[in-house]
Amino acid sequence: MALTESELISLRRDLHRRPEPAWCEFYTTARLATALESRLDLDALHVGPDAIAGDHRMAVPDEAELARWYDRAREAGVDEAVLESLEGGYTGLVAVLERGEGPTVGLRVDIDGLPVEESDDAAHEPAAEGFRSEYEGAMHACGHDAHATIGVGVLERIAESEFSGTLKVFFQPAEEVVGGGKSMAKSDHIRDVDHLLALHIGLDHPTGEIVAGIDGFLAVRHLEAEFTGQSSHAGGHPEQGKNAVQAMATAVQNLYGIPRHNDGATRVNAGVVEGGTAANVIPEEARILAEVRGETTELMEYMHSKARHVVRSAAEMHECTVEFSIGAEAPSATSDQELVDIVADVAGRTEGVERVLERDELGGSEDATFLMQAVQENGGTACYVGIGTDHPGGHHTPTFDIDEASVAHGIDVIAGAIERINQRGF
Amino acid sequence: MALTESELISLRRDLHRRPEPAWCEFYTTARLATALESRLDLDALHVGPDAIAGDHRMAVPDEAELARWYDRAREAGVDEAVLESLEGGYTGLVAVLERGEGPTVGLRVDIDGLPVEESDDAAHEPAAEGFRSEYEGAMHACGHDAHATIGVGVLERIAESEFSGTLKVFFQPAEEVVGGGKSMAKSDHIRDVDHLLALHIGLDHPTGEIVAGIDGFLAVRHLEAEFTGQSSHAGGHPEQGKNAVQAMATAVQNLYGIPRHNDGATRVNAGVVEGGTAANVIPEEARILAEVRGETTELMEYMHSKARHVVRSAAEMHECTVEFSIGAEAPSATSDQELVDIVADVAGRTEGVERVLERDELGGSEDATFLMQAVQENGGTACYVGIGTDHPGGHHTPTFDIDEASVAHGIDVIAGAIERINQRGF
Amino acid sequence: MALTESELISLRRDLHRRPEPAWCEFYTTARLATALESRLDLDALHVGPDAIAGDHRMAVPDEAELARWYDRAREAGVDEAVLESLEGGYTGLVAVLERGEGPTVGLRVDIDGLPVEESDDAAHEPAAEGFRSEYEGAMHACGHDAHATIGVGVLERIAESEFSGTLKVFFQPAEEVVGGGKSMAKSDHIRDVDHLLALHIGLDHPTGEIVAGIDGFLAVRHLEAEFTGQSSHAGGHPEQGKNAVQAMATAVQNLYGIPRHNDGATRVNAGVVEGGTAANVIPEEARILAEVRGETTELMEYMHSKARHVVRSAAEMHECTVEFSIGAEAPSATSDQELVDIVADVAGRTEGVERVLERDELGGSEDATFLMQAVQENGGTACYVGIGTDHPGGHHTPTFDIDEASVAHGIDVIAGAIERINQRGF
Amino acid sequence: MALTESELISLRRDLHRRPEPAWCEFYTTARLATALESRLDLDALHVGPDAIAGDHRMAVPDEAELARWYDRAREAGVDEAVLESLEGGYTGLVAVLERGEGPTVGLRVDIDGLPVEESDDAAHEPAAEGFRSEYEGAMHACGHDAHATIGVGVLERIAESEFSGTLKVFFQPAEEVVGGGKSMAKSDHIRDVDHLLALHIGLDHPTGEIVAGIDGFLAVRHLEAEFTGQSSHAGGHPEQGKNAVQAMATAVQNLYGIPRHNDGATRVNAGVVEGGTAANVIPEEARILAEVRGETTELMEYMHSKARHVVRSAAEMHECTVEFSIGAEAPSATSDQELVDIVADVAGRTEGVERVLERDELGGSEDATFLMQAVQENGGTACYVGIGTDHPGGHHTPTFDIDEASVAHGIDVIAGAIERINQRGF
Repeated sequence: MALTESELISLRRDLHRRPEPAWCEFYTTARLATALESRLDLDALHVGPDAIAGDHRMAVPDEAELARWYDRAREAGVDEAVLESLEGGYTGLVAVLERGEGPTVGLRVDIDGLPVEESDDAAHEPAAEGFRSEYEGAMHACGHDAHATIGVGVLERIAESEFSGTLKVFFQPAEEVVGGGKSMAKSDHIRDVDHLLALHIGLDHPTGEIVAGIDGFLAVRHLEAEFTGQSSHAGGHPEQGKNAVQAMATAVQNLYGIPRHNDGATRVNAGVVEGGTAANVIPEEARILAEVRGETTELMEYMHSKARHVVRSAAEMHECTVEFSIGAEAPSATSDQELVDIVADVAGRTEGVERVLERDELGGSEDATFLMQAVQENGGTACYVGIGTDHPGGHHTPTFDIDEASVAHGIDVIAGAIERINQRGF
Repeated sequence: MALTESELISLRRDLHRRPEPAWCEFYTTARLATALESRLDLDALHVGPDAIAGDHRMAVPDEAELARWYDRAREAGVDEAVLESLEGGYTGLVAVLERGEGPTVGLRVDIDGLPVEESDDAAHEPAAEGFRSEYEGAMHACGHDAHATIGVGVLERIAESEFSGTLKVFFQPAEEVVGGGKSMAKSDHIRDVDHLLALHIGLDHPTGEIVAGIDGFLAVRHLEAEFTGQSSHAGGHPEQGKNAVQAMATAVQNLYGIPRHNDGATRVNAGVVEGGTAANVIPEEARILAEVRGETTELMEYMHSKARHVVRSAAEMHECTVEFSIGAEAPSATSDQELVDIVADVAGRTEGVERVLERDELGGSEDATFLMQAVQENGGTACYVGIGTDHPGGHHTPTFDIDEASVAHGIDVIAGAIERINQRGF
Repeated sequence: MALTESELISLRRDLHRRPEPAWCEFYTTARLATALESRLDLDALHVGPDAIAGDHRMAVPDEAELARWYDRAREAGVDEAVLESLEGGYTGLVAVLERGEGPTVGLRVDIDGLPVEESDDAAHEPAAEGFRSEYEGAMHACGHDAHATIGVGVLERIAESEFSGTLKVFFQPAEEVVGGGKSMAKSDHIRDVDHLLALHIGLDHPTGEIVAGIDGFLAVRHLEAEFTGQSSHAGGHPEQGKNAVQAMATAVQNLYGIPRHNDGATRVNAGVVEGGTAANVIPEEARILAEVRGETTELMEYMHSKARHVVRSAAEMHECTVEFSIGAEAPSATSDQELVDIVADVAGRTEGVERVLERDELGGSEDATFLMQAVQENGGTACYVGIGTDHPGGHHTPTFDIDEASVAHGIDVIAGAIERINQRGF
Repeated sequence: MALTESELISLRRDLHRRPEPAWCEFYTTARLATALESRLDLDALHVGPDAIAGDHRMAVPDEAELARWYDRAREAGVDEAVLESLEGGYTGLVAVLERGEGPTVGLRVDIDGLPVEESDDAAHEPAAEGFRSEYEGAMHACGHDAHATIGVGVLERIAESEFSGTLKVFFQPAEEVVGGGKSMAKSDHIRDVDHLLALHIGLDHPTGEIVAGIDGFLAVRHLEAEFTGQSSHAGGHPEQGKNAVQAMATAVQNLYGIPRHNDGATRVNAGVVEGGTAANVIPEEARILAEVRGETTELMEYMHSKARHVVRSAAEMHECTVEFSIGAEAPSATSDQELVDIVADVAGRTEGVERVLERDELGGSEDATFLMQAVQENGGTACYVGIGTDHPGGHHTPTFDIDEASVAHGIDVIAGAIERINQRGF
């Protein structure tokens, strides 16, 4: 028997309480595995290393960080066997439902949280209702708790439906660092998918609004730069230092000053910086974790090339060396019109949906694009759907929250579209 | 019986192996307590909270940091009773030797290490000889291991001498963050000190060279600035962010650009910076731990005032708020001529000493100045002595090391000067 | 009798040889007046103060600059009476041809040059053919010489045609500083215009290509900031200075770092900067002439507001004051579909035109938008046409040049469209 | 008959009214020539090209600037023959008085003004008394008008005295750009000078105070950097530009951030900057005129080397090229004790002098050091004397002015010292 609506909301709140960053979704993965197995008669449930191509993971944190979250998951009390299989940061799941002849339809949802400290303001519903994040400095500030819940809900709905064919739901880790999409796109599970749906909640669309096909994914790349200079006593011999923090600050100032491009939107962010060891030591080391984006891959490459050049020159200026590493990346992608038409039609008939937009631009990045590309290159079709929700704070901010009514909209629209795909028989 | 020279060298190497940062000198304090009690018939040994005025400690690290080093000290195996008395970062010792009528002479040595990763190059003697730091990212890179050893050696030498009066050796914690001097200067122990000696090894003077009186202490103040802006999604809504890292970078660039001053030397260093949480989030928070110095207190205040103004304007520019806190500070000071004359004369007669400079400038900062000021304000005299040592790398760098022969020079010159003070009867 | 094609080319080359900056088009205006009067039976020719609303001129240079160009024009030998009427920077013309009943059609062309030093490379045709700019540091680097020539050619073509109605050609000064469009839009001459055409040559479209309707005009505003600090002797008292150049440099760095905006394209440029008086004086004054742009007026206002804030904070940081002045501005605008259709159709039938694009984005700014807005607000229609030309160097660069064959394309397409408008009778 | 005191004050005020920048001292040179010839029976008066080694002039302005000042001098009405001899920027004089056997004593005074706009405040005496600068943006803001006057006064006093030997007064051009000292030091006139005096008024010493020997001349070098990038349309193709103004701003920010040096005082100033041509063009060119100083030549070289490195890296960062040129420079120097003793003694006996300091630090630069070095290298002695004067504003500021009473102090002390040198016969 399927979860009731309130059970699904309970699941969402449980996930919300324990947001885990990229590749550390130990609790989340194990909790979803348990929920799926206890309720559904799945044909296959691939967990952790079986769900992804481990070699293609990007932006995996260091062992200490992995261990810290692994321990927390154990303390939170999850299935030990599942947990152990995830060790080392092999998270995520692929749930498979086989229902006879018919197309293989994929649904991709992401499951990771963000390094944002959740608001404890009384006006913030998770705080008021007691399901605020239990982990300091971590938060589901982008709605992936709802995405995972919708994934479960769609599986149940299809299990009870007349759907004929195969449904695969990809619970993808590490979207926030655009580090997980590639590892799922390189796994075998995607190979036979004929039609792929992906979704995102919110995106400044209110509850009751559905965007049938989202485009405008900015291509993105993460770039880490480590500066090495030379320390010296800041009082006694400032002239002997090679100041890595001066290099870093010069780089930051000029990264944001990379010229805008006439061909389309670009982005740059020095998202994490750090350097130095003590007030009285000229800093020997500093680090920038930056990201660049572009409306096209070419524009992203333009930003990447300029960013490296700026960083290299800033290091040179302060007589430091610099080493780069690429953290993660994602391409751009486009929603196919056939699927957009289906989603738009289904959404227009869905209860609670008041407005359907055929297309909108994301204006951000998403590594669902890796999976979309993989399916499209195999001759299939893909579509990225927006599920409106009233969200008090912006995405990635401490007061982000969803209107839980939109979870049902998501399940209805996506499950409805999957059935319709089946009926169309294409 | 006194420690032999090789026992002293063993002590120095043992301390070198376990460098502990400011207020975390748990092993060091306990180790020194054991060494002093086992060998010397002290009249008093004040340890930890009894050695300092705890309320006047500055720049104490957070509890987690204190706990980490406390645990390490316990694992290294020290006297548990002593260790427990230090809990919470109350480190340091005052050792007292009473030898009848006569002046009270003080000697101040400092005992803390630095957050520098020690070289493991074969040419670096501690690495070659097996007494390199056991603690990653921590190092005795300024010779305080030698200072503490000289303190012990002087106590032993005076214990065996004809000295009549009282000798107090102040083993001061937290010099590197200029956080400990004030707490010793505010303790009762300094009140009856008539003449104070302090010392430093190295300072670009070779083995065999002694500087009788060092001046030119730069007044110093540590300043922490915490920027708060507003996070937003770096791809989706860069315009909604208030970028704390841009504010910080602008501040760093302009801090180093504070005008030089015609009245004398000034310094500024943004020694530690950090900010942001993820590549794809406009950074909401950033932090600078800076220090300013001046040849006089006025010049330091000039730098401090300018630095705050720069930081405040940088925050304002990027629509961030900023909060300041003062970390620690130390005044300037001067060596008294009477003591300089004594030290110069004694040094000239000391075996192994080939050259005596009457005066030199430190060109750095030192919170021994708090103790010197306290004694001088009570009508006493103070003198800061330089003990030359060949050091391959500069102070505060990974290849700093001492020529161990200079430990004996330090003991000979300081102990000799204490005896001479006694003879002069002033 | 109309000018032959080679006479038109001679006119273009004559104008090319004497490029004059905004509001200094003394030679150009007088030369065009003479050319028009000698060849055409105009019904009216409004020159200088009669052609524009003088109070609405923006970005007029100072008197010395005006006088310098005025004198040059006199030396070049133009009609003294016309020249005198232009004194003080009242340039431009409106030529009127009345041909009985029918619509009033306007054509707007711009006539000013740029402060760019023209290439003297042998590969640069104006250099090779001897019509390179005679004025150091000034150049027709954006094709306005061709625009003015097309304006003359269209007048002649219509004069000889069956056109019934009124044709007004607006020879607009000061487009490059977006300073002249408003003064023509505020003059009485625009009030009765039913349909307005404007044009630009080049824009990265090759010879033989026509863009029927250009959109994507970036709204623009020019902003001047004058910093005042305090001078002092750079060697003797650097600490007494309030360094206006440091303020300016900090502002420039952060102006280019204003966050990109999710709602669309933005631009910022610190196009002219200067400051200081001597190497050994801390600079007391500095200046930035900047411009901001936005895909919409709101985006331009966002950039303007951020830019002022950055500049104000940079001044504050370096204890300087700053005064702002707005130089000039232009709104956005859109080409009406009715006219786009006409132009596209005519262009498709024009000899030498090989490719017609219905729409393209300018991605720059233009103050023709003031005239377009004025006509559209009066219930009329407007259209901005692109005339392709092979141009070796980019617009605003020293090697910009046109393929003179495109002058004929411009005349053919625009005159043809005007006749068609007349036929359609709308 | 010598000039009366009021005549000397008139001369000073006349010079004050017509301040001329480096190498443009046409009026000043001609005016001094006339004054000297009309009043004194000189043995030789070398003017312009005869006074200096023209090839060693540094920092000569361009021809247009020279011509502008030359024309002004002619308009002001000076001896045409003298004026013509100065054409091209060969300014300055050497006046020679031969009085039989005895030492050759030199006195060096400088004569140029500064690019500072003089205050017109009523509290500013030159404004109130009607001798404020007649030239916009030029001012005697460092007292060289008084220096020249003292030079004349000393010649007269010695002419009337018992002095036996030769007196040469060097009226040196172009001190403010440290461009003239070398050309006088390389001329033949300095070769036989046995003892050289130089002087400066003010320097924060009040009226009635004399500094017998000034030291602490900062070695200085002027450095010009010209950046070349690539222009492009700021709205249409910002990505095609190579922004020379961004390079310049990055360089300025980091020039001021060159680390302070433990060996002594350093200075850096980006005194003049400029770049760009129009608001809507990405700037192709930019320029910095900077100076670096050091307490020693080594420190100046340290700053110079760092400054070039910063500028080169900033150019590289923004894909610009940069060309350097050295503008001018001056070494350090020391006053000889023998002369200091004489000056101190004479000053102590001079009417109106209330306080004599034996030594003080200049803390600035001066190219008198070239002449001092030349004399000292020939075995002679040199001394730089400070003549106190109450000055309301600082040197190089719009309200700088002198207390005219100090002109007499200067003449008395210097002439007295010259006579004493003669008596001492050394």
